[in-house]
Amino acid sequence: MSCFVVSCGGFCIHRRNQVFLEKNKICRNKQGRRVDLSRNLLVAVLPKTPTPQKDPVQEKETKKDKETPVQEDSFFSLVLSRVVDTIDDAIVHFNRSFFPPKIEPDARKPVLAVLGTGWAAHSLIKVIDTVRYDVKVISPRNYFLFTPMLPSTAVGTVEFRSIVETFRTANPFVDYLEAFCVDVDFEKQMAICECNIPGEKRRFQVYYDYLVVAVGAATNTFGTPGVQEHCYFLKEISDARGLRRAIVERFELASFPDISQEEKYRLLTFVVVGGGPTGCEFAAELHDFLVQDLKKYYPKLFGDVQVLLLQSGDSILTQFDRTLQDKALENFRQSNIQVITKARVTEVTSTHIRLKDGTEIPYGLAVWAAGNGTQPLTKLMLSKIPEQKEARGRLLVDKWLRVKGVSNVFAMGDCAAMEPVPLPATAQVAGQQGAYLARLFNRDYCLSCPVPESEGNSVAPLARWRPGGSPEIAKPFQFLSLGILAYIGRERAMAQIETGVEKIKMAGVLTYLLWQSVYITKQVSFRNRVLVLFDWFKTRVFGRDMSQF
Amino acid sequence: MSCFVVSCGGFCIHRRNQVFLEKNKICRNKQGRRVDLSRNLLVAVLPKTPTPQKDPVQEKETKKDKETPVQEDSFFSLVLSRVVDTIDDAIVHFNRSFFPPKIEPDARKPVLAVLGTGWAAHSLIKVIDTVRYDVKVISPRNYFLFTPMLPSTAVGTVEFRSIVETFRTANPFVDYLEAFCVDVDFEKQMAICECNIPGEKRRFQVYYDYLVVAVGAATNTFGTPGVQEHCYFLKEISDARGLRRAIVERFELASFPDISQEEKYRLLTFVVVGGGPTGCEFAAELHDFLVQDLKKYYPKLFGDVQVLLLQSGDSILTQFDRTLQDKALENFRQSNIQVITKARVTEVTSTHIRLKDGTEIPYGLAVWAAGNGTQPLTKLMLSKIPEQKEARGRLLVDKWLRVKGVSNVFAMGDCAAMEPVPLPATAQVAGQQGAYLARLFNRDYCLSCPVPESEGNSVAPLARWRPGGSPEIAKPFQFLSLGILAYIGRERAMAQIETGVEKIKMAGVLTYLLWQSVYITKQVSFRNRVLVLFDWFKTRVFGRDMSQF
Repeated sequence: MSCFVVSCGGFCIHRRNQVFLEKNKICRNKQGRRVDLSRNLLVAVLPKTPTPQKDPVQEKETKKDKETPVQEDSFFSLVLSRVVDTIDDAIVHFNRSFFPPKIEPDARKPVLAVLGTGWAAHSLIKVIDTVRYDVKVISPRNYFLFTPMLPSTAVGTVEFRSIVETFRTANPFVDYLEAFCVDVDFEKQMAICECNIPGEKRRFQVYYDYLVVAVGAATNTFGTPGVQEHCYFLKEISDARGLRRAIVERFELASFPDISQEEKYRLLTFVVVGGGPTGCEFAAELHDFLVQDLKKYYPKLFGDVQVLLLQSGDSILTQFDRTLQDKALENFRQSNIQVITKARVTEVTSTHIRLKDGTEIPYGLAVWAAGNGTQPLTKLMLSKIPEQKEARGRLLVDKWLRVKGVSNVFAMGDCAAMEPVPLPATAQVAGQQGAYLARLFNRDYCLSCPVPESEGNSVAPLARWRPGGSPEIAKPFQFLSLGILAYIGRERAMAQIETGVEKIKMAGVLTYLLWQSVYITKQVSFRNRVLVLFDWFKTRVFGRDMSQF
Repeated sequence: MSCFVVSCGGFCIHRRNQVFLEKNKICRNKQGRRVDLSRNLLVAVLPKTPTPQKDPVQEKETKKDKETPVQEDSFFSLVLSRVVDTIDDAIVHFNRSFFPPKIEPDARKPVLAVLGTGWAAHSLIKVIDTVRYDVKVISPRNYFLFTPMLPSTAVGTVEFRSIVETFRTANPFVDYLEAFCVDVDFEKQMAICECNIPGEKRRFQVYYDYLVVAVGAATNTFGTPGVQEHCYFLKEISDARGLRRAIVERFELASFPDISQEEKYRLLTFVVVGGGPTGCEFAAELHDFLVQDLKKYYPKLFGDVQVLLLQSGDSILTQFDRTLQDKALENFRQSNIQVITKARVTEVTSTHIRLKDGTEIPYGLAVWAAGNGTQPLTKLMLSKIPEQKEARGRLLVDKWLRVKGVSNVFAMGDCAAMEPVPLPATAQVAGQQGAYLARLFNRDYCLSCPVPESEGNSVAPLARWRPGGSPEIAKPFQFLSLGILAYIGRERAMAQIETGVEKIKMAGVLTYLLWQSVYITKQVSFRNRVLVLFDWFKTRVFGRDMSQF
């Protein structure tokens, strides 16, 4: 292992291959930037350029480094390690709740700026030790949103406020700034922000010691003309709220006395573009809303209603096994949801959807759930970092979530692609990455090192100095997939559960109970659990509310 | 009593002083307009012009008519009569629920067009017999809103959807059109409507046999410059939602790193203009939100928060007895709500409120709850009816809610002023008027008569023909005041209850329990009761949600 020497005045003790630093001191690296040395740290990284001459000992160590982090835990040891981690997190959480950290205005803690309030950022701030770090969350949205249930809220099965948690509630010891991060000055370690409060065009800068980018993804329209103007999306509460209002609006409009039969038929054609989990779950929830509620209040119109699901591939829910895909298709057929596969949308007008084969589908409401695109900030960052030129819309990160090409910057969730094989852009991955990164911060690993370049499959690992004398390399992030679930309508769901040995595949009414149990368990607070349960009860007893506001 | 002869072909049996009409037949009056004769009707009204020669018998009858309707029920007989009415309504409701009317597309029922979905319209459609009338509700809002709890929703004590009821749920047998009524052609009996669906500029006409105007009131800014642009109101869900978001926004803005102390102080000054029930209840709810929730999440900012209540008069809640007003003032003092009486606002800028005495108050958020103004439709109607020239922003109606100067048009609630002394513009009055008018419709009173002109204090009454042979005059509307309630913060409320003998005055924590019981009881459906109760529980256990969307 080669050594990168940080200059830190008299506080650092220089050894071969490592820099041992005194506790609770602030040092500066070669570029004169401040380095967090809140505990004993081991800085152990590969040199950037030029590659130094290798001596046998060094080569051996490097080889070892190359192998150690790549070695992955088995399913069971990963589960075990997550259990241990969770206990560790719980202790941090317990300490924070019962021995709240005293606010010492003069105490200078390393500033950890987090961009975003999604899955990754939320699980990070739940776990992060705010005694040690001055955490500043910058996001235009002051709450966490349980996105897998967004389709449910778009029809009113569950209320919007039941699946959100305010960031200040999630961890009252983080500072939150309601702003967009519009740019980052990597040199000065400054996030340039713009206030997200209507009528306030305030711009300000936030200094960071560490920056965590977790801004998620935008909707991908694939440049299809008309999508942005005429389609509804399912990314944010505002989308779901607009959609909830729009569905009833179509029925109200079709009730007007001067509407022709043809127009009525068009208005009541609901099209969902995208056969992934979001598109399918929305189609399923829409079906329930139509059959269980709207049919009762618009009996004369119900004969004209149709739901179409357009999918560019040749099947839906391709994450699932083929037998489950077929079950989903069969359930949709029984629900009168018309699934059109190999349907590539080429244009959307205010009244029609045009497919590649020339078909024109008149529609009343279209929901676009066809894929993830890149957020403007991510695009800007990618353009600023030369090492990211091979990135395809997501920031390339190493196995410790460090952004390739810049120091002290981490990325996770949908905006990050871990090398060499990017993980799926799911809530499960993002949530695990957030908690993982928080643990790296909590456990004194050296985070201030300049980012190493990729050397084949291997990169320089993160490490820390153990009292025993040997360096300990941080385990790289490893995704623990517990399985996937999807609601397919008519109180039926599908599940594909990973056990490490084989996949358990289930579909039907009982799986819906499992789906409900998992979604309740995965809620981020006790409050959310109570509210979602009450909403389900409310929907069952009183139906979904159709008031439009 | 003199007789007005309607021409109705062979269906009508003409008698002296009355026109007896066969059941279930449609007739036309002198102007050739259709007249509802769904049951045996007695048309018994005074002539318009010229006044015919009076014979002694006629004169005697007219005198009787003049006196009878003016005579008012005592408190107890009014209560008794309302109980009987309620049982009657319940029977209609029961029949509708358990023996739903069959839809016969060819059956021609008189068209009753109702403009509005507020208190008056809602209680009308709950009681109206849809077997007998073809009810069409025209309103831009497809739900009823329990307005007295709007201040609670503006801070999140209760959720928006808990205090609304969709109109189609309230009575599934009425037709609802999501539109603004922009004009009425009284001659052709047509309501001219404009669709309230974004992007749809559709205009259409709705024919009516009877028109009920219940469009409520707008906010009255008294022409004060800047109010419309800079103040929040409390009339609709959209107002409350904007307000809920804006309150937290002020705190978020004050949390930005570059905000000066002076600016912080301004941002956290909340001003409520208007010391009536809405203004006071909002100030009280805001206080609770600040103390119970926001203080916890913005501990550093809380010292800069202040709430001001500006009232142009010399006391607040003037509907209450003086002793109760003083109690409210004392409670506000203890809550640190600064009440400034005799404060007349002359201008509102984006940062300051200017008073008549020259004082300038820097503010962060201002709520205007200073009084009721006239809706554009009401203004237009007033300008079109010469007999309404003395009206002061509300349609003048007789004791049977008939609009002075036009036939077949009724008005109630905040947009109507009953002659000679207008009733207060409250939910209680509107609700009672709606139910009263529905009963007139259900009980076969003659409603198609041309509207008589006022003769001193007396107008021609509404009447119906009883099988016994004698005409029965409809009781005029009489408001049964049961008392008034107001929430004043810190879990304290005030009540002034009418018993017919004396007023019972109460204030304090126990009165808050009474306030809660009354508000739960007065909810318009079982669903609303369950939801509001759950919201109260949720607020107590988990606090109010601060997520901004």
